[in-house]
Amino acid sequence: MLQLNGIFPPLPTSFNSDESVSQKHIRRNIEYLNSFDLRGYLILGSNGELVMLTHEEKIRVMQAAREAIPQEKLMLAGTGCESTRETILLSKEAAKAGADAVMVLNPSYYKGQISNSALVAHYHAVADASEVPVVIYNMPANTGLDMTAADILAIADHSNIIGLKDSGGNVAKMADIIYKAGKDFQVLAGSAGFLLPALSVGAVGGVLALANIAPGHCLDIYNVFSDGNMNKARELQQKIITLNAAVTRNWGVPALKAAMDHLGMYGGPCRKPLQPISDDIKKKLLQLL
Amino acid sequence: MLQLNGIFPPLPTSFNSDESVSQKHIRRNIEYLNSFDLRGYLILGSNGELVMLTHEEKIRVMQAAREAIPQEKLMLAGTGCESTRETILLSKEAAKAGADAVMVLNPSYYKGQISNSALVAHYHAVADASEVPVVIYNMPANTGLDMTAADILAIADHSNIIGLKDSGGNVAKMADIIYKAGKDFQVLAGSAGFLLPALSVGAVGGVLALANIAPGHCLDIYNVFSDGNMNKARELQQKIITLNAAVTRNWGVPALKAAMDHLGMYGGPCRKPLQPISDDIKKKLLQLL
Amino acid sequence: MLQLNGIFPPLPTSFNSDESVSQKHIRRNIEYLNSFDLRGYLILGSNGELVMLTHEEKIRVMQAAREAIPQEKLMLAGTGCESTRETILLSKEAAKAGADAVMVLNPSYYKGQISNSALVAHYHAVADASEVPVVIYNMPANTGLDMTAADILAIADHSNIIGLKDSGGNVAKMADIIYKAGKDFQVLAGSAGFLLPALSVGAVGGVLALANIAPGHCLDIYNVFSDGNMNKARELQQKIITLNAAVTRNWGVPALKAAMDHLGMYGGPCRKPLQPISDDIKKKLLQLL
Amino acid sequence: MLQLNGIFPPLPTSFNSDESVSQKHIRRNIEYLNSFDLRGYLILGSNGELVMLTHEEKIRVMQAAREAIPQEKLMLAGTGCESTRETILLSKEAAKAGADAVMVLNPSYYKGQISNSALVAHYHAVADASEVPVVIYNMPANTGLDMTAADILAIADHSNIIGLKDSGGNVAKMADIIYKAGKDFQVLAGSAGFLLPALSVGAVGGVLALANIAPGHCLDIYNVFSDGNMNKARELQQKIITLNAAVTRNWGVPALKAAMDHLGMYGGPCRKPLQPISDDIKKKLLQLL
Repeated sequence: MLQLNGIFPPLPTSFNSDESVSQKHIRRNIEYLNSFDLRGYLILGSNGELVMLTHEEKIRVMQAAREAIPQEKLMLAGTGCESTRETILLSKEAAKAGADAVMVLNPSYYKGQISNSALVAHYHAVADASEVPVVIYNMPANTGLDMTAADILAIADHSNIIGLKDSGGNVAKMADIIYKAGKDFQVLAGSAGFLLPALSVGAVGGVLALANIAPGHCLDIYNVFSDGNMNKARELQQKIITLNAAVTRNWGVPALKAAMDHLGMYGGPCRKPLQPISDDIKKKLLQLL
Repeated sequence: MLQLNGIFPPLPTSFNSDESVSQKHIRRNIEYLNSFDLRGYLILGSNGELVMLTHEEKIRVMQAAREAIPQEKLMLAGTGCESTRETILLSKEAAKAGADAVMVLNPSYYKGQISNSALVAHYHAVADASEVPVVIYNMPANTGLDMTAADILAIADHSNIIGLKDSGGNVAKMADIIYKAGKDFQVLAGSAGFLLPALSVGAVGGVLALANIAPGHCLDIYNVFSDGNMNKARELQQKIITLNAAVTRNWGVPALKAAMDHLGMYGGPCRKPLQPISDDIKKKLLQLL
Repeated sequence: MLQLNGIFPPLPTSFNSDESVSQKHIRRNIEYLNSFDLRGYLILGSNGELVMLTHEEKIRVMQAAREAIPQEKLMLAGTGCESTRETILLSKEAAKAGADAVMVLNPSYYKGQISNSALVAHYHAVADASEVPVVIYNMPANTGLDMTAADILAIADHSNIIGLKDSGGNVAKMADIIYKAGKDFQVLAGSAGFLLPALSVGAVGGVLALANIAPGHCLDIYNVFSDGNMNKARELQQKIITLNAAVTRNWGVPALKAAMDHLGMYGGPCRKPLQPISDDIKKKLLQLL
Repeated sequence: MLQLNGIFPPLPTSFNSDESVSQKHIRRNIEYLNSFDLRGYLILGSNGELVMLTHEEKIRVMQAAREAIPQEKLMLAGTGCESTRETILLSKEAAKAGADAVMVLNPSYYKGQISNSALVAHYHAVADASEVPVVIYNMPANTGLDMTAADILAIADHSNIIGLKDSGGNVAKMADIIYKAGKDFQVLAGSAGFLLPALSVGAVGGVLALANIAPGHCLDIYNVFSDGNMNKARELQQKIITLNAAVTRNWGVPALKAAMDHLGMYGGPCRKPLQPISDDIKKKLLQLL
């Protein structure tokens, strides 16, 4: 089975100044990060501005990324769309482009109708059709829909569904899912803000926006925890909450890209309506860095 | 200026049994509804499964609809996407396909970053680029983001933005917007559940899912109110709350399509993950009809 | 049956500068308002700082108010507490103090356990024990618990429960309740922000914070609507949204009391932790007045 | 400084069948639990039905509890009320009755006005007046108001405020508070569901409903974690999520009391509107036990 143990940065999608996709900068960012002991990369996640890209652009992002990601590192590709059929189509393209697994955000627009049974049918149809394993992606802050433990466990009952990235931050729920889904189901923390707490209850790693700009620090938490040094792990964890919130919940992808620019990677613009961070916020961000 | 006074059904998008778009059934449904004194039609709204369709499919839906919609009735086309650039592209296509106005749902995925200024920049860029007028579309139950009166008023301050469809149901907010935005800004109730209350504070009409299956009843409320017969209007309004909730909030587009099938129109399937209503719910629905 | 048709101000509880209850100022405010054609008064509602007062203080407020309220005007007294037993005790005291009806806010602290059946049992026990009729009080912005139409209808099915004050602002829900609960169940708008929309669907009046400081304007909306002059009613309704929001949702009881002080009534301090409005907000408030 | 390290059960308040307070059963439950190595007890928390009790009853509960709690174990008493003045009064009574510290739930009814500055003024006034140290109590599921890290840190800046019980479950927030508030500020997990994750980021213990019925298991998690045995700690933590949810979020205090009855302690009735759990739920509960 595909092992997800470790740290994954969810790569932003690089755009040129006219907002067109820059395959070149996608590759360069990956090449820079390849020197760290990361388990792999997520492309086309929330930080990858998945909802801003057309089907064709998503394929081009996958192709560019795979060119730069060495075979020993995993490429997870976000392929969740509102319709089951488009999610299936894109998941097939992901396999073709060399993704090791697809990460599928739940549909959420028709909140009142996205029941447990609708979710199970959706994910199982995707898992049946996908040539690569499926990882569930729960992101309630963006979707406005928080899949319950019961939802996740029902969805997880499929041989081609191997794990969950949970960005909700409810660590008790994560613990419950890990316990009940059994050993073969791998849970990843969806934010560095709760990496250590998630590891403490059995998560196998994390997909962390912060790992784009502080991969070493994120790996340190993971490694120090694995070595059983809880005091050091706690210290490292506590220190990154504020910076992590800055490039996620508080100021979002524009702040993450600004930080990357500052650190010598390529951040570049977001697609509008996402706006560049203000000078005032940039100042605060650089202090945190 | 384009007058929006009156009742608009937000047409479901007709799909064949393999979920492909059926231009034929889109036309037939419109031809049937043309016998009613409706002001026009909204296509590609939430009931039109806008988030389930590709860019190309949306254009085909517009083309089919315009073929069936006579010139004296308005075609409003939903063109809101998460990115400003795709919203602009689609709005241009809508004008080309003969839409009289575009109805633009707000971006919502990056909730934390969709600030007042991001919304204003987004809508004004679309309004600058669009050859036809823009109507704002607020749908918090689906987007998880409720634009405030201050947001709406700031967005409305553009000569090519002529109105608002508000599905949030906060009638006090609607009254405040109507008062402050001035006479040239036209507000439409987004659900039959609060049509009369909205009219009472100055809304000029409604875009009502219920108008697909009970156009006569919806027109009666509108006309009886316009004639000043408040007692009759109240009676008519009270009676439709339950049926309206059934085909909107409670059971959604699948129930609306099932009701259309029952009434001799074409409902057909929704795109998955939306699932057909159960036999038990269908029984309750038919009783309400 | 007790007729609730008309306008009721929910009186703030007057406190001296040491935060002790001032019966004198409670009486004086009522004596001032008696010159208006109000249906009566609500005491010990949210504007009456019900949650800040002890059982004994509440009785003293009721006694003072009744001394000043003439028999032809109604005294509604808020008696809802978290426990059924204390609600019953206080409702008995209210009858003894001369209340014409009690207005019972739902318990809400144990949100997860306040089910439909718990609510019905609670309200029916109170209604069984109360010597005066009971009015249901729904105030989701403060309680964090919005009773559904199904909750209200199940509670309403008791001969001693005669109406509802709904501060939630969901006018479609109000229309549905009015239709299904039948003629003997009287619904009051809980805020001037949606008075006219509520009247348009069959509400019989309102309990309006704004009626403390603009009783004439509130009565005008009610009377003009009753006379069938919808254009004038709409105009009057639109104008008060901003001021109403100022003394309710936005700045709360401290703003209402400041406005009363400004208008020559007695506002005085709130009990802490409620703080006086800042000078900046006071300036904005006076402009609105 | 008072050391809060360890495990505290938040004791339910024992009522006789007529819902009167039973000092006898309060003492007996404590006497039974005294055999475990608990750090102390919280009385008059959410599980103590604090909102159901009068001022006088609360004092009697404190007195009964202190009689049974040996001096080497701490008595924390919940004294938070909606008004600052009543909170101060009750905190003084708590000190008189022998409480080692008071635990102060935030006021929440006037959500729109309970700003950061109102919270700081409230807590600092209480801390100034209280003869014993103050612990902040955040319980968003019940109050509907989640104090932010910034709120907590501003409140914590007072020499008589020594810690926080956080029942919100946002472990990233807890980590941030622990880091920024410094060594003298002690954070307690408010639910067993996230005890281990909270300990992993620096919490010093927990106030856990589950510790009333499974004190040994809760102590095991705490002790095994302290000994650095993370594998065992994780195993123990994962196992208790479901039972913990049963006696907290899902079925509440009635389920906790039913479990106590089943285990030979005194549970007894809750005050209405809290209703006894159904036979069906009781069956499920006993299976979990």
